[in-house]
Amino acid sequence: KINGDRLWDSLMDMAKIGPGVAGGNNRQTLTDEDAEGRALFQSWCEAAGMTMGLDSMGNMFATRPGEDPEALPVYMGSHLDTQPTGGKYDGVLGVLGGLEVVRTMNDLGIKTKHPIVVTNWTNEEGTRFAPAMLASGVFAGKHTQDWAYGREDAEGKTFGDELKRIGWVGDEEVGARKMHAMFELHIEQGPILEAEKKDIGVVTHGQGLWWLQCTVTGKDAHTGSTPMNMRVNAGLGMARMTEAAHQIAMAHQPHAVGAVGHCDVFPNSRNVIPGKVVFTVDFRSPDLEKLTSMRTQYEAKAKEIAAELGLGLEIEPVGHFDPVTFDESCVSAVRGAAERLGYSHMDIVSGAGHDACWINDVAPTAMIMCPCVDGLSHNEAEEISKDWAAAGTDVMLHAVLETAEI
Amino acid sequence: KINGDRLWDSLMDMAKIGPGVAGGNNRQTLTDEDAEGRALFQSWCEAAGMTMGLDSMGNMFATRPGEDPEALPVYMGSHLDTQPTGGKYDGVLGVLGGLEVVRTMNDLGIKTKHPIVVTNWTNEEGTRFAPAMLASGVFAGKHTQDWAYGREDAEGKTFGDELKRIGWVGDEEVGARKMHAMFELHIEQGPILEAEKKDIGVVTHGQGLWWLQCTVTGKDAHTGSTPMNMRVNAGLGMARMTEAAHQIAMAHQPHAVGAVGHCDVFPNSRNVIPGKVVFTVDFRSPDLEKLTSMRTQYEAKAKEIAAELGLGLEIEPVGHFDPVTFDESCVSAVRGAAERLGYSHMDIVSGAGHDACWINDVAPTAMIMCPCVDGLSHNEAEEISKDWAAAGTDVMLHAVLETAEI
Ligand SMILES: NC(=O)NCCC(=O)O
Ligand SMILES: NC(=O)NCCC(=O)O
Repeated sequence: KINGDRLWDSLMDMAKIGPGVAGGNNRQTLTDEDAEGRALFQSWCEAAGMTMGLDSMGNMFATRPGEDPEALPVYMGSHLDTQPTGGKYDGVLGVLGGLEVVRTMNDLGIKTKHPIVVTNWTNEEGTRFAPAMLASGVFAGKHTQDWAYGREDAEGKTFGDELKRIGWVGDEEVGARKMHAMFELHIEQGPILEAEKKDIGVVTHGQGLWWLQCTVTGKDAHTGSTPMNMRVNAGLGMARMTEAAHQIAMAHQPHAVGAVGHCDVFPNSRNVIPGKVVFTVDFRSPDLEKLTSMRTQYEAKAKEIAAELGLGLEIEPVGHFDPVTFDESCVSAVRGAAERLGYSHMDIVSGAGHDACWINDVAPTAMIMCPCVDGLSHNEAEEISKDWAAAGTDVMLHAVLETAEI
Repeated sequence: KINGDRLWDSLMDMAKIGPGVAGGNNRQTLTDEDAEGRALFQSWCEAAGMTMGLDSMGNMFATRPGEDPEALPVYMGSHLDTQPTGGKYDGVLGVLGGLEVVRTMNDLGIKTKHPIVVTNWTNEEGTRFAPAMLASGVFAGKHTQDWAYGREDAEGKTFGDELKRIGWVGDEEVGARKMHAMFELHIEQGPILEAEKKDIGVVTHGQGLWWLQCTVTGKDAHTGSTPMNMRVNAGLGMARMTEAAHQIAMAHQPHAVGAVGHCDVFPNSRNVIPGKVVFTVDFRSPDLEKLTSMRTQYEAKAKEIAAELGLGLEIEPVGHFDPVTFDESCVSAVRGAAERLGYSHMDIVSGAGHDACWINDVAPTAMIMCPCVDGLSHNEAEEISKDWAAAGTDVMLHAVLETAEI
């Protein structure tokens, strides 16, 4: 069993970097705080006898050698970046859980045939630079590195420039590494495990996603002196499209969600009818047909709304992945470990996107989930218990030991 | 008659300060650009033989002496601040038109019994610091100076600090001046005069206004892993309240408008259900009953929407004035001047708020309007013709000469 106190202490130490305003974290990707978190993680890995590799997307790979120099490594990993108002565990648990697995193997003098690698994937959250899971996506060949380098934040700074600025561009070619398998431990970010009183979620599938960035153009005009029938109100268009996204998701129940999280209004003045709005619709479903249908229906409805109001409309997909089925033998390793350790468990579908969803395309992959209080995540109040964190990490230890061959 | 070319040149010179991104201006109140515009205006006034007074709200008063030292001055004025994406004429025409009237009187050696004062009122637009017409409101006793000094912009900077920073706090007590009368020349900002092919709008009334700032609180949560029935989506609440504001204004036609121009979404991340939104509804009508009814209906409907979605709701009025009836004899002076000069004219209701609306409460006041192309304002593409500007200024000259007694 892993050392739950040590794991918890590391989680709390990492949370000191980039504190939020309400008990959580704001350690967004490629900020100075991200750089500080990376340096702390590297120092811990080195203290645990690992050597750090770094690729040109800033992905970090800490290796514990195996006994067979020919054997491909078994990976564990997730991400250290957070939402602007994020929690202390989303992503961080998977990285520091991997570190704790290695520390435990060191304590017990366990040797494995396959090397073990603990990974921190760059820009998983996708808030500062869309899409989410950007660097694991490049690793898995979903995006080119050039395209990723050109992604811009709200201030127009590019991913490539910011990665250089914080000093975490490595020499390794992205995706050159081959993997024997990869495991990602993550908090559920949803309410099911807690409601079902299960310690462990054995993640068999992941939802697919569409992020549709909508740019609606109307005509800036005076809110007081412009008659109602002369208005071309982009803000009203956004309101109707937001409602449409909600209604379309409701019409695809169960196993479908939809919402608008991001809106920018121009010029954003109380007495100016908005001349332009940019907002992003987020649709998800584990069912490819539903996912496609929500997108299609939304695009048609948004066009209809724009036409009614005389608005210009452009819809640009800024994030997409299909529903995922994780590797059967890796999933079995997770389920078997939970079973052997006596943890209550259930099969579950991941509601969120994860680096594991991309890596699953290039290596056998599975995920382990632990509950979080009230299913709350992407909120500074995100909370888990020390026992939940320890149980998930225990299961990862045993799944990895089986896969890496003691 | 005034010198239309000289007036136009001054308008174009002022427009060089704080240029916008699309041919208009961004010379928001209490910015460095505002300070620069003030200094230019002061230099022109001094060159025209006027002396500048400055009160502690930064209101500027350039005086041309009268023949009777006991007689109260006749004022002309408007504002030099602009919207973030504003036009070159909104407000500016009224200030520089006043200057042109004085320049013309100088050219012709005209003396008046009453002194003449040209005024630049601080923060008319209300975008950076709500409410609009802030400094004329303090002058008219509608707000205290302390309250005005404490108004904050989006970055939390206060009006008082910013006025000091740009160096335009004067010694004069606000509102201490007494006025014989005040005239404000302004572009219509609406489509009526152009459609009716009239040179001059004789403004008899002004619409009343309510700005209702709504703070809606939900719960930040993950857009992917939070089931639809567990969401407390503040953004969806905003969408429904925006539609409600629109529907309520439509139900009060004619002579009523309503829209949402300003929205801020928190944390504004594509994969976070908004936990908080702040937006402002702008309702206007020349009819007090309609104005009150729109506010009342909106508050009830917003409460209903919040209750349905489980959202917190706070509604704070951040701007308000009742419909205005301008002074009969000042209005007659404007109408008479237009008639004598042979300009086509019609009585009109102001759709926008103006400093004149507040001053009307403490002194006999009227407004002169000139057309603007397509009724467009609060847009960088705002446009007027040199002839329209000259006609409005001619009418102001004659109304002022009559009121100030040659
Ligand atoms: N796990 C997680 O929150 N990932 C961010 C990408 C997403 O929105 O699903
Ligand atoms: N004239 C003008 O645009 N004033 C700003 C205040 C308002 O919104 O009416």
